[in-house]
Amino acid sequence: MTWVYDFAEGNKDQKDLLGGKGANLAEMTNLGLPVPPGFTISTETCRAYLAEGGMPDGLAEEVTEHLASLEEAMGKKLGDADDPLLVSVRSGAKFSMPGMMETVLNVGLNDTSVGGLAARSESERFALDSYRRLLQMFGGTVLHVESELFSDALDAVKKAKGTESDLDLDAEDLKGVVETFKAIIKEHTGRDFPQDPREQMDLAIRAVFDSWNTDRARLYRRQERIPEDLGTAVNVQAMVFGNFGMDSGSGVAFTRDPASGAQGEYGDYLQNAQGEDVVAGIRNTVSLADMAEIDAQSHDDLMDIMNRLERHYRDMCDIEFTVERGKLWMLQTRVGKRTPEAAFRIAVHMVDEGLIQMDEAVLRVTGEQLALLMFPRFDEDAERTLLAKGMNASPGAAVGKAVFDSDTAVEWAARGEDVILVRKETNPDDLRGMVAARGILTSRGGKTSHAAVVARGMGRTCVCGAESLDVDTKGKQFVVRDGETISEGDVISIDGSTGEVFAGAVPVADSVVVRHFEGERLDDDLALAVARIMAHADGARRLRVRTNADTPEDAARARRFGAQGIGLCRTEHMFLGERRELVEKLIVAEDEDGVEAALAALLPLQKQDFTEILEAMDGLPVTIRLLDPPLHEFLPDLTDLSVEVALAEERGEDSEHAQHQKALLSHVRRLHETNPMLGLRGVRLGIQIPGLFRMQGRAIAEAAADRMAVHGAPRPEIMVPLVASVRELEIVRAVLEQQIAEVEEERGIKLEIAIGTMIELPRAAFLADRIARDADFFSFGTNDLTQMGWGFSRDDVESAFFSRYFEHGIFDVSPFESLDQRGVGGMVEMGTAKGRETKPDLKVGVCGEHGGDPRSVHFFDDIGLNYVSCSPFRVPVARLEAGRSVLGKR
Amino acid sequence: MTWVYDFAEGNKDQKDLLGGKGANLAEMTNLGLPVPPGFTISTETCRAYLAEGGMPDGLAEEVTEHLASLEEAMGKKLGDADDPLLVSVRSGAKFSMPGMMETVLNVGLNDTSVGGLAARSESERFALDSYRRLLQMFGGTVLHVESELFSDALDAVKKAKGTESDLDLDAEDLKGVVETFKAIIKEHTGRDFPQDPREQMDLAIRAVFDSWNTDRARLYRRQERIPEDLGTAVNVQAMVFGNFGMDSGSGVAFTRDPASGAQGEYGDYLQNAQGEDVVAGIRNTVSLADMAEIDAQSHDDLMDIMNRLERHYRDMCDIEFTVERGKLWMLQTRVGKRTPEAAFRIAVHMVDEGLIQMDEAVLRVTGEQLALLMFPRFDEDAERTLLAKGMNASPGAAVGKAVFDSDTAVEWAARGEDVILVRKETNPDDLRGMVAARGILTSRGGKTSHAAVVARGMGRTCVCGAESLDVDTKGKQFVVRDGETISEGDVISIDGSTGEVFAGAVPVADSVVVRHFEGERLDDDLALAVARIMAHADGARRLRVRTNADTPEDAARARRFGAQGIGLCRTEHMFLGERRELVEKLIVAEDEDGVEAALAALLPLQKQDFTEILEAMDGLPVTIRLLDPPLHEFLPDLTDLSVEVALAEERGEDSEHAQHQKALLSHVRRLHETNPMLGLRGVRLGIQIPGLFRMQGRAIAEAAADRMAVHGAPRPEIMVPLVASVRELEIVRAVLEQQIAEVEEERGIKLEIAIGTMIELPRAAFLADRIARDADFFSFGTNDLTQMGWGFSRDDVESAFFSRYFEHGIFDVSPFESLDQRGVGGMVEMGTAKGRETKPDLKVGVCGEHGGDPRSVHFFDDIGLNYVSCSPFRVPVARLEAGRSVLGKR
Repeated sequence: MTWVYDFAEGNKDQKDLLGGKGANLAEMTNLGLPVPPGFTISTETCRAYLAEGGMPDGLAEEVTEHLASLEEAMGKKLGDADDPLLVSVRSGAKFSMPGMMETVLNVGLNDTSVGGLAARSESERFALDSYRRLLQMFGGTVLHVESELFSDALDAVKKAKGTESDLDLDAEDLKGVVETFKAIIKEHTGRDFPQDPREQMDLAIRAVFDSWNTDRARLYRRQERIPEDLGTAVNVQAMVFGNFGMDSGSGVAFTRDPASGAQGEYGDYLQNAQGEDVVAGIRNTVSLADMAEIDAQSHDDLMDIMNRLERHYRDMCDIEFTVERGKLWMLQTRVGKRTPEAAFRIAVHMVDEGLIQMDEAVLRVTGEQLALLMFPRFDEDAERTLLAKGMNASPGAAVGKAVFDSDTAVEWAARGEDVILVRKETNPDDLRGMVAARGILTSRGGKTSHAAVVARGMGRTCVCGAESLDVDTKGKQFVVRDGETISEGDVISIDGSTGEVFAGAVPVADSVVVRHFEGERLDDDLALAVARIMAHADGARRLRVRTNADTPEDAARARRFGAQGIGLCRTEHMFLGERRELVEKLIVAEDEDGVEAALAALLPLQKQDFTEILEAMDGLPVTIRLLDPPLHEFLPDLTDLSVEVALAEERGEDSEHAQHQKALLSHVRRLHETNPMLGLRGVRLGIQIPGLFRMQGRAIAEAAADRMAVHGAPRPEIMVPLVASVRELEIVRAVLEQQIAEVEEERGIKLEIAIGTMIELPRAAFLADRIARDADFFSFGTNDLTQMGWGFSRDDVESAFFSRYFEHGIFDVSPFESLDQRGVGGMVEMGTAKGRETKPDLKVGVCGEHGGDPRSVHFFDDIGLNYVSCSPFRVPVARLEAGRSVLGKR
Repeated sequence: MTWVYDFAEGNKDQKDLLGGKGANLAEMTNLGLPVPPGFTISTETCRAYLAEGGMPDGLAEEVTEHLASLEEAMGKKLGDADDPLLVSVRSGAKFSMPGMMETVLNVGLNDTSVGGLAARSESERFALDSYRRLLQMFGGTVLHVESELFSDALDAVKKAKGTESDLDLDAEDLKGVVETFKAIIKEHTGRDFPQDPREQMDLAIRAVFDSWNTDRARLYRRQERIPEDLGTAVNVQAMVFGNFGMDSGSGVAFTRDPASGAQGEYGDYLQNAQGEDVVAGIRNTVSLADMAEIDAQSHDDLMDIMNRLERHYRDMCDIEFTVERGKLWMLQTRVGKRTPEAAFRIAVHMVDEGLIQMDEAVLRVTGEQLALLMFPRFDEDAERTLLAKGMNASPGAAVGKAVFDSDTAVEWAARGEDVILVRKETNPDDLRGMVAARGILTSRGGKTSHAAVVARGMGRTCVCGAESLDVDTKGKQFVVRDGETISEGDVISIDGSTGEVFAGAVPVADSVVVRHFEGERLDDDLALAVARIMAHADGARRLRVRTNADTPEDAARARRFGAQGIGLCRTEHMFLGERRELVEKLIVAEDEDGVEAALAALLPLQKQDFTEILEAMDGLPVTIRLLDPPLHEFLPDLTDLSVEVALAEERGEDSEHAQHQKALLSHVRRLHETNPMLGLRGVRLGIQIPGLFRMQGRAIAEAAADRMAVHGAPRPEIMVPLVASVRELEIVRAVLEQQIAEVEEERGIKLEIAIGTMIELPRAAFLADRIARDADFFSFGTNDLTQMGWGFSRDDVESAFFSRYFEHGIFDVSPFESLDQRGVGGMVEMGTAKGRETKPDLKVGVCGEHGGDPRSVHFFDDIGLNYVSCSPFRVPVARLEAGRSVLGKR
């Protein structure tokens, strides 16, 4: 077993073994780029360490060997009193986990070598500051001393000196700081800071391994679906210093603009600084163009290297570099993160530049990115007043009145107002308010805070950790750093994609991508890039994409967005509005005649609904689901009506209205169910009131006949909801077939109307082989399958326990948003397989909301469904992901 | 392919091929018993006929051949003008379907052969009456003429003659009837009654085949779980006549008393009568002993044959015989139906007589029969006034006030009164009333009527079709034949096991079997028989039987009934009564301190509960389920409380109580869920309020420690409800283990407390391999699995659609009563298999109510569960069935 690898021994494809950072350092080393030498302790070592609870045999010897090579290469000894080699000890897992694990710099400094460093660097202040940093990092991360103790002590020194900047502290000050830090360590750990450089290094390595299993790291992995058992590698690398003087510096750079995707290098450089200073923004950086003025040689070297890296990686690269006394050093590279629009532009540009093929371009973008591009955005040309910037925790552009508690959020939202819930931080009790709000803004907490995690899980816009805001929930206001105050009811706008918070209502602009899908001819670079990617994805995909649409308008829009039919046309929405009265008549009918009269009145209206939708989807399949919801949903709420009737009686009211309400109450009571979701709905309604499905069957058949009469190409499919046994389907099928036959007879035509079923109950998945006997197609209702499979309802998304479930990592995303592949997905897979045992060519689709969720689309493609169906706006996302699913397997 | 078999070619084990009747006729023929000769057309022929829609090739030729043999054996030709051979054409399926399929007698009679029969029988009247019967049966069942047309015409003739009895019609009258019947057939079928005897036979055979698929036959099969695809055989047999005069007769007999199980023959004989007359009871029959007086030879022959049959079949036989002019003919035999007490007695007697072994004796009785023996019964020694006798549609002894509509039933039952719902017949709207009532009584409808089917499905006592009662639902009374009137509110008693209806409250006596199980020493034949059977079943069974018990009293009783531990101890019942106040405090607590205070007050009470139960089950495992139900169940109903608060406000009430209620309402609202069954319950409660499970875990651990301190052998097991993912279990397990460890530390002892989980969500069954990682045992909650699997709730048992589902044969029995083996059973099987993939020795049980259902017990044994758990009263049933399951496979 080999535990340790020199940078020269690896390559970029060894992320499993060396972690991302280690693999890329190896790659650059082997490309001959100027990388400070070092070695990587493999992820295998971490796994062995965690499993055995200690360092594996042989590791110490290998580290000794590699350290010796490193010392030889550098011509220095670790912690040497005269000319010390200093090293960084950094974590580096397969998947980036920014900020989650530990790093220790300047390992090798001690009370004597600090003098050697001072001499060699000709700066006592530099040496002492480096030692101070080591003590602080090592004390906090390796020795687990509370980090506030160090920063408070440093602040005290600065305060005593009357300054706010570290740079104002001189060597004498720093000597004091070093002593103080050493005393803190002694006091809180009971031991001295280890002076032995090798002991420092070993302890730092151990601390990096341990940091794999901190609570925050575990939570992050659950959030990001990173497996628990990977472990992290450790990179030990010779330190180079960008803070040796004005001929030194540090920078970050991208080979293209990661925000817009525009071609050309892009980055920031800061003279006399270390990498962390660039990111912290303590001084103003300069652009790469300006860097050329300062240090032409280093700049040219950098340009050359970046060019080589991009051609080598065939992707936009993100680079960290340091110039030490005029010599350029590469500290890190990786494929760079980018905005959604940059992703699409870069993918297409790289095709045009011959770097990649279209197949790969499609794989370089995601449905999630496309969905982000389709969100309405704040109009960048509009005047806007930035109040603060926090973390872009969950995307979207939300405008609403600021409210500071959940009750108000719920109350105001219920009366139709848009609200933004503003809190210092959120907790499970805020969940109702978070659901009611358009967006959530907090002043504390990072991307794994309650607010961020829950908002992402629910798909709510969220900006978190806007620390410059002083939120006063009791006083129902927040104060911005410049003193401006926003009170309850004042309108604010938050951009969850950028983290920006604006005063007032920033106008929202339609996305250029949506305008493109809507058919607008746009000479827009991004729209064209999206169009090319979509065309290629469509050419590649196997899965068809339909839409869930209940109106001709939605159907038409979805068709423009590329829908290949309707996978779910719900008929319950057709019973609302003015027709509610007819439905009430149906429900309160005293006898068979009353039921028939109510149904007869509904028939022409239903027929009209279907005719219009079939027209909008002419030539494409339209799956119409028979009435599904419990009937009481068409009646008033039991509690409200009970109170109304009780009060009317108390007041002795006897108006016609009062009498009607009283009579209605008895029906509401009769239909009331403690658990309506588990009860009289779906096919059970059709069996309980046979006339209902008969009427709907006739309306569909007549609508199809009418469309044929005007030379349309109607392709209706009838879908029976909530079937649990083949016998139910058999009964309803007979009713429907009779209606179809009667219309065929009356009109002298032949209708092609498939009759299929939802598979949305776990039992149906188990019995799918039998149910398939009477079904022309299956459509999985993954919403109900999720409800029944987990035993909770969609309403629970607002329940406090749901929020606890996010916190505990039981979910990383709501199973109503993204399919629970193991559980509910298992049912879909089983149902599909069993259905096709009976009918090998059975057409199978999915019409739950998961049909437009990227991860879920891949799953549905993998298990061989014929189509997914989703809301019109998700149709392009599903098309893209269906294409990516196929291309990803090539 | 052979379609037709002579009786001499078969045997009793060929029921699949020859049907039950055919196989037994063959058996008797081969035993050399006097069976009228004939042949059987196989069930295969029926299947081929139904599949092809016509008689299969070669059948006609085979029938011709066998008919020729029959004619040769009888020395007569079918329908011969001078001396006609007459045959019966009877259905005979593998499983008895009494009254469901067709029979045609006297085939072979026509306008000429009727003269031959008259001459040979020396009775023109007999011949004409036989012809009249043929026309009537053939017209109705073969030609589908409405049977009322015939009976009405016959009634008209009788009326004209001023008589009510067929026997008063003379030959001349019957000639007229024959002509009238032929005219009816001509008028309603457009053709003459077929005079060709062979055509009569062929059509009759066809009619029997067709009768397999009538609606009532299908419904019956669904009810009785008889497969649809078996088909029926047809038996063609030479007619013998018991109505040739006083030296002829017909009878039915049993080789033992089918009511008591007593040894010795038992039966009825009727001179000068056909079999149907015996059953119809038009004249008084005589006992077999009296038959000896009338016809000693036939009686001796019969006794001899019955003796042979019982020794041959090694079981009690049910026999039909006819004496034609002093010659005994055997028409049918089969293993006889018997009452539950007869079943136990006969089984044990036969062991003692050396006819069977104990293994077989156990297989001769059922858990259902044992359950019936455990029902309380009407005291037979008490004075009782029989009002009527209907059909014993669903067993039990019910006493209550007569009510005539569902609303009254529900209302009176709600105020604690026992009611019997009396209806002419029931329909789905009566379901609420049927559920509320102790029993159901109808004056119309047979054993497949709505009332009977639904009552059996729900386990409610029911007597149906008590036709002598004149039920007036509007007038809220019924009139008995003798004029006595029972009005609403009058108490009646109904016996669902016998079909008897009594006036007043007949005292109910404890079952002698229950008294035996309770430990009473009884010198009772039945109790001893049950004891012997149970001992043998216990010796054979593999499955352990535990009980569901929440109190020490239930635990102790179940232990007396043979329970081997508690499989489900629900803790929610421990939070009711006086403790409800503490639970309310927990729910309305404003902060963490309030929650902790409420839990601290509950802890000693819970500990006391557990200590007592552990004491009652000392030495046996006690599975305690952590709190499961939604918290709002401990608070008032939302609608009731809303009305109360609204009225109080309207009236300006401001009492302390009014204020409390108002405050409470906000909590009830907060906790209200539209679908509480799908929501915050089970493990979610424990994760939401971590202190709750912590308190329960500590109470269990302390109770166990207390029991150990007094040298008890506590074996508590902690069960976590509603787990859907391993992560939930992991979180709760950590909480519980900490409590156990703390108590161990405090007391200085080692506790053995297993921690397991319910598997009651479909997802849990799919993910059981992962969940098993953190579970010491599984217990399937088949109630919730049924709810989630089917997507309806237990409340729906009272919903109208449930009744429709029985009617449509979607269920034959409620899936809450007997496990839906295909669907929910599939989940249990999958969960068990997956759990044992992870832990091969995983202990798996079931604690849904299905654990005491006989069919379900076999299923659980078959799939390898370790134990079932059921209510104390079902423990003996489960023990017996677990034994039978093993013995049935030997």
